[in-house]
Amino acid sequence: MDSITIIGLGAALMTTISNIPQAYKIIKTKETNAVSAWSNIVLFIGLVVWVVYGFLRNDWPIIISNLISAIITAIVIFLKLTSKKVIEDIHDKVN
Amino acid sequence: MDSITIIGLGAALMTTISNIPQAYKIIKTKETNAVSAWSNIVLFIGLVVWVVYGFLRNDWPIIISNLISAIITAIVIFLKLTSKKVIEDIHDKVN
Repeated sequence: MDSITIIGLGAALMTTISNIPQAYKIIKTKETNAVSAWSNIVLFIGLVVWVVYGFLRNDWPIIISNLISAIITAIVIFLKLTSKKVIEDIHDKVN
Repeated sequence: MDSITIIGLGAALMTTISNIPQAYKIIKTKETNAVSAWSNIVLFIGLVVWVVYGFLRNDWPIIISNLISAIITAIVIFLKLTSKKVIEDIHDKVN
């Protein structure tokens, strides 16, 4: 594996996991007001289209990294749109 | 331009602009509490590494889309980390 591929994998890893702290912060603080639902919805759709693109190109790194991102982003969207009660239940289970 | 390329451009466009609603929401509501600084910092670093990867591969779509995303994400990080006073000044200028 050459160094450029390793740099690409590093970039993919960071952008893939970047929404995890946001999901964790919502569960920990039970606060979602300032989080933009539209940002995460547009991101989610873009990620799903990237997964489709990956299948059409048979490019597994693109499929896997964007699929993981899409799942994490879907969790953030769920947390943002669900009721405070549901977040509190998740909060209590996690803590 | 074949249809697969168009799908790829569509995905790139959506993931590139996805943080704009978040920046706008912060300026409009003057609220940043629930927004995760870490999510945006990790995303920003990942995007910069993608730009480096794009230069190494001489792949301009990767360079441009990730550079735009990095700039928008830098704005969100600035808004998140700056003082409430600065956000109010920006808010007043925008409205």
